[in-house]
Parts: sequence; C-alpha cells; structure tokens
Amino acid sequence: MRAEIITIGTEILLGQTVDSNSAWLGQRLNECGVQVERITSISDQPEAIKAALDAVPAGIDWILVTGGLGPTKDDLTKKVLCEYFHDELVFHPEVYAHIETLFASMGRVPNALNRPQAELPASAEVIPNAVGTAQGMLWTRGHQRILSMPGVPYEMKRIMEDGILPRMRAERNEVLLHRYLVVQGIPESDLALRMQNWESALEVPLTLAYLPSPGLVKLRISIAGPAAQEDALLAKITASAESLKQLLGEDAYAEELKPLEELIGELLVARGETLSTAESCTGGGIAARITSVAGSSAYFQGGIVAYANGIKQAQLSVNPADLLVHGAVSEPVVKQMAAGVRKHLKTDWAIATSGIAGPSGGSEAKPVGTVWIAVSGPGYSWSHRFQMGKDRGRVIEKSILAGLNALRQGLSR
Amino acid sequence: MRAEIITIGTEILLGQTVDSNSAWLGQRLNECGVQVERITSISDQPEAIKAALDAVPAGIDWILVTGGLGPTKDDLTKKVLCEYFHDELVFHPEVYAHIETLFASMGRVPNALNRPQAELPASAEVIPNAVGTAQGMLWTRGHQRILSMPGVPYEMKRIMEDGILPRMRAERNEVLLHRYLVVQGIPESDLALRMQNWESALEVPLTLAYLPSPGLVKLRISIAGPAAQEDALLAKITASAESLKQLLGEDAYAEELKPLEELIGELLVARGETLSTAESCTGGGIAARITSVAGSSAYFQGGIVAYANGIKQAQLSVNPADLLVHGAVSEPVVKQMAAGVRKHLKTDWAIATSGIAGPSGGSEAKPVGTVWIAVSGPGYSWSHRFQMGKDRGRVIEKSILAGLNALRQGLSR
Repeated sequence: MRAEIITIGTEILLGQTVDSNSAWLGQRLNECGVQVERITSISDQPEAIKAALDAVPAGIDWILVTGGLGPTKDDLTKKVLCEYFHDELVFHPEVYAHIETLFASMGRVPNALNRPQAELPASAEVIPNAVGTAQGMLWTRGHQRILSMPGVPYEMKRIMEDGILPRMRAERNEVLLHRYLVVQGIPESDLALRMQNWESALEVPLTLAYLPSPGLVKLRISIAGPAAQEDALLAKITASAESLKQLLGEDAYAEELKPLEELIGELLVARGETLSTAESCTGGGIAARITSVAGSSAYFQGGIVAYANGIKQAQLSVNPADLLVHGAVSEPVVKQMAAGVRKHLKTDWAIATSGIAGPSGGSEAKPVGTVWIAVSGPGYSWSHRFQMGKDRGRVIEKSILAGLNALRQGLSR
Repeated sequence: MRAEIITIGTEILLGQTVDSNSAWLGQRLNECGVQVERITSISDQPEAIKAALDAVPAGIDWILVTGGLGPTKDDLTKKVLCEYFHDELVFHPEVYAHIETLFASMGRVPNALNRPQAELPASAEVIPNAVGTAQGMLWTRGHQRILSMPGVPYEMKRIMEDGILPRMRAERNEVLLHRYLVVQGIPESDLALRMQNWESALEVPLTLAYLPSPGLVKLRISIAGPAAQEDALLAKITASAESLKQLLGEDAYAEELKPLEELIGELLVARGETLSTAESCTGGGIAARITSVAGSSAYFQGGIVAYANGIKQAQLSVNPADLLVHGAVSEPVVKQMAAGVRKHLKTDWAIATSGIAGPSGGSEAKPVGTVWIAVSGPGYSWSHRFQMGKDRGRVIEKSILAGLNALRQGLSR
C-alpha cells in the first residue's frame, strides 16, 4: 500500500505552524505496512487544493488530507472537496447530536458557526471525530481512498485511531520493519568509517540510514517485503541489528526509537530508586523531559533550577568559596550541585548541569557552550566538561541530551 | 517572487524527523517578500528527487532543496543533482581548507569520508557553509534558481543567512505583511462570532486567518502588494489590526508573534523585577521556557520542581495539613507554593502549578486535567482552576501556556 499526505494551511507555508501531523501519520502508517511516498503542504487556496489532488499518481492507495475543516470563514477544504468530487452537503442529525454532547461536556452550547459542521458531503463516508466538531470524510475512487481530516493534531489522531488505522491493519499485505541504534557523542563521519565493513556487507533488501541530530546519530536499519514473509524478514533484520550492536558495544543504546527519558524511567523503576535534578544552564529542561513520561512521579521527586549563584548556595549548599575561585561553570560546583540536590531532596540519584548557554557570558577559558554535567548515585560519581557549540538553543538541547544519556549510562552499569 | 521547498529524507516520511526547516524557511522568505507556494517532502530515492524537481511549475523563482548532503552512503542528493543538471564534480581546495579548519577547531582532522565533501558541481555556485562540511550549491536555469543545502537545521540556516537571504532582500519587489493577535482561553467559534461584523467589513487585499492551538487562537491579518506601495499597505494593515485590538480588548495580547516568555522577559526587565517558579505538573517546563530566552539570567533566579509532596513541604513550606485536607491539587497548596518559592528564592514574582497530568491520578472531584495555577507578585495574588483535557502532553503544554499568560497579565497591570 502506498500513501500521500496533503496538508492544507497557509500557516505551514508561512512557517507559523510546524507540520507535526505528517510525522505522526508517517509513523502510524508505516506500522500498518503503508508507505508514505510524498508529503505536500499547500495554501488554503481552492486552486492549490485541487492541483494537489490532481498531482497524486494513480498508483497511490491512500490520500490523507489534513486542515481547513474548522468553523471559521478561512476553512475552505470541505467546500472545495465537494466541488472536486461533484458532491453536495447533507445535514447529519447524529453528527449534530454529537456536537451538542461535546459542547455540553464543556458547559457550552453550539453556536451558529458550529451547526454547518454537521453538514457533510453525501457521497463521503463519515469517519467520526469523537473529540471534535469537524468529522472525517472518506471518498472512494476505484482502489484509491481520499480522507479529509481536521488539522488539529489530537482530533486528526483520534479519527485515524478510531476509524482508519484498524482498516489499514486489516488490509495489511506488506511489512515495513525498522531497527534503531542510537549513538551519542561520535561524529557521523567517524561512525561511518568505523561501520564501513559492516555497511558494505549489508545485503538487499536491508538498508541503512544515518540520522544525525544535535549530539546524536540515530542509525536505522530497514527491511520491507510481503506480509507472508514476515518471520523471515524479522529474523534477517534482527540478526543485522544484533551484529551492529556487537560492533558498537557500549557506545550505542536502545534498539527502539525510545526517548532517553523513557529508558531512564524504566531503569529507575526496575532498580526501585529515585531521582532529583539540579539545573542551571538547562533551566528545568531535564526535569521537564523526565516528567513528560507518564508515571514519572513513581521515581522523580523534584528538582532545583538554580539559575542565580545565590540559589546554588542557599538551595544546593554549594560552597561560596568554590563559586568565587572556580566559577559557577566548574567541576567542583556541578558536583556539589548534584550532591546537594541528592541530599536535600533525599533521592538515590541526581543529575546537575552548569554551563554558559550564551550568547553572552563566555570568556577565553570558558567560551559560550562550555557545560559541566555531573551525575551522582549510590557509590557512583561522574562529571564531564563539554563544548556544545555557540547557539543558545542548541547548547541547551545538547546539554539536556548529554545529561540524560550520562544518567542512563550510570543507571545501566 | 515565488518559491517552493523540497525536503529530501526518508526519515521525514517515516515520521522520525519533524520538518522544522521548512517552517524556518517559510518565515524568512516571507520577510524577504518571497511567497512559499508549496513544500514537498520526498524520500532519498533518485527518481523521487528528479520527479520533484520536474514537478515545480516554471513560474517559481526559487527552489530550495534541503537534505541528503552528509558524508555517508545514504546521502545521494549531490550525485542526483549532478546527473539532473548534466554536471560534474570538481575538487575545491578552498572548501577543503575550510573543512580542515573546522575540524581543527574541534581538535579533529577530516577523515576519508569528509574529503569528497569538497568535490562540488562545476556549474553550481558554491554558497559557503561556515559551520559545516556540506556546502550550499546554487544552479541557475533562466529566472529560476535551485539551491541545495544540508538538512541539519543550523547549517541550513547559516547558508541562508550568509549567502541567500541578503540576495533575496536586495531583489525584493513585493511586500508580504502580517499582524498577529493572540487570544487565550476563548474557543475559536465563539471568537469568530464575536468578530463577525469586524470580519465582514474586512476589505481586499486584507485577509484574516484563525490559527488554533492548545488553549490559544492566533489571529493573523495579512496583506500583500508591490514593494513600491509598502507605506500604504502598512498603513492599511496597522489600522485593521488596531481596530481588531480595540474590539478584543484585554482578551488579546501581542501584536507580533512573540512567544509569551519573551514578552514576560521584556516586562520584567522594564520593571526591574525578578522571578521564580514552583512547578508540580509542568515539571520544570515553565522554567525551561523562561530560560530559553537569551538574557533571562537578568531576572530569573531559579525554581523548584516539587513533584513529590515531601518536596512541596520541605522546599516550599507548604502546610502538611493543607496537603492532607485539600490535596496537592488545590488552591491553598498552589498559593502556598507560589508564596513559598517567592520567599525562599527572594524574588518579586513567582508562578506555581499543581495539577493532574494523567493518565492516572484522577478522581471524580478532580479528574485528569484539573490544574491549579497561582501567580504571586508585589501586592498581587491570583489563582485559578483549569480543566485542561485528558491527554498528558496537552495538559502539560496548556498548563505552561496558561501559566505564562497569567504571569504576563499580572506583569502588565
């Protein structure tokens, strides 16, 4: 099965909205053996919408359209699709009843702009949107299906999960398998040289991709084939991933594309231990990442964001003399921050960061991007100085990742 | 001027990477009077790359291509473009010298995979990449220019900023102007009804768009026209934005698309006051947002992430009896958290959050999504209970936004 995604919304072309819907759709479709071949983002103009539909090759099985189904005047997709399919709108009382129920749960009543959302194209199948007023609309044209959904991510996801992904799974005739290894701290070209022999020996239909991001390289091994051969394909990709894992040893983590914060959560739960954070340059970003995981309250006690030196002293018992002599961005201070938060918040593990995110605050000895990270745990103490580049956003993001990875390494000894 | 963006990378189609490059490009080009008409994301397959180039209409002035220029085997863009333009690779000693310098600054030397990155197509202009090994390549075909850049965001941005945006600015013959109003806490359809008369009176070439996101609606007023008429267009859009601002009054903030954390920073700097945070359900996310702003150390002292009740008592002096009687997610507790952090961290302002992000932890009286937020400042005390829905990620994100907005309102009295 092959699919194309069309996202409608001038806000995407203007860069006001980052298209995260397509990434979610790409992941889910892939799991159902449906390959996304192209994503096209266009404006809310009727001609652009029609041209995009005309440009889809006949061989595509699913066309997933998002955006332009809201209650306001700038939402034109339903009208344009009606024209495109020579369709007409019909009022659906059951859809209006759903809209009323939805509003009632928020203590509201539908207004004049919500009623037309229950008018839907006669020849389209309604794919219910349990959490919103704009319903999914599905047209069929030969083997090709065209689905229109709202652009609000959680409504789009709900329509897919309730009404579309189950169908795709039932029709699945191909498998697309992937294995991931994540390598932290080794530059992409050095890694590629180290893997040269392994990569040369890789046999079709196995493929390898390098996905670099700040401080990380993700390696993706992929294989595709008929669903009937799933077991053989699975054996092949598993063996391949295993041999790469052996080659990279401790430098690689996680065979799945699982975020570090989830791996850390699993390790802490397994060990029955707790965690706290003491953050300066990462400003709460590590704690935010840790607490993004459902169930993190089982192991995460809390953290101190110690931006000012006074807070480092008062809340983390950092020695004022060390702040004076070595500066806030130094090994003694970051180690005391980790030890201090661990002691004050009474946790088994702690992680601390102190660095110069920039753009100002750098010196010759400690230029912008200098970051100290420390991890403290039962019988464990680790600290390291990093140079994270010059861009504030990247310094913070790389520090968060390096900190989480150092914690993962400490926890997995 | 009209542009199209083509992003190359199977990782985008698989949903492993969210395409944030296109959003950045869309914003920058718009500022230069260049309108992005379509964004197409395709796989690393040579046929897909060639087909995407063939599909660009002749009227497009700029084709911006990102991705596939890395040092590894899966990076095919340069080879494919060479074939497409019947071009051949030539070794550029000055580019290799730049690569060597770049590596030296990181204490490394280029390896065998980096040398070919100095081989570039003979008929393309080299657009230097000051921060990376993959250079920009610019082909010209009549009025149409085709630029190939690496997909690593900060390298792509640097190439654009150094070599391309200045040219676009110099050639600018059209202006695309936008004004933004952000409304927090009013549902989109209610807002549209309230604005109905205003919207009906809106005259061409002015246009309005509603951009809903969790808890917010951004309103965008746009106008486009010849650069020679810039003053008249500017007067028109300013008057329009002003009348809408009058209509919406206190419910709308910010005439630019400036993040709340930047507005808060400006307000605190202007007042010469300081801030701290006490976060439970937002887990450090508010502090991380505040400290993402360059110069935030001037007003942000620090924060306490008090996930466990013990931390709320020990670090924020929350009364244990109130925790017992009212629970952690309650008005007395969140007010004490704000007051406690303000006192302990000695700041003028404080913001506190306590809520049930889910998926577990809800009850009938306090279902998942119940969030209390408090703001405390000089002679100012505010607190409010919100229902933020059921999805953990959305509850956290909406709570961060509602908290930042409440703080902004307190600071702008």
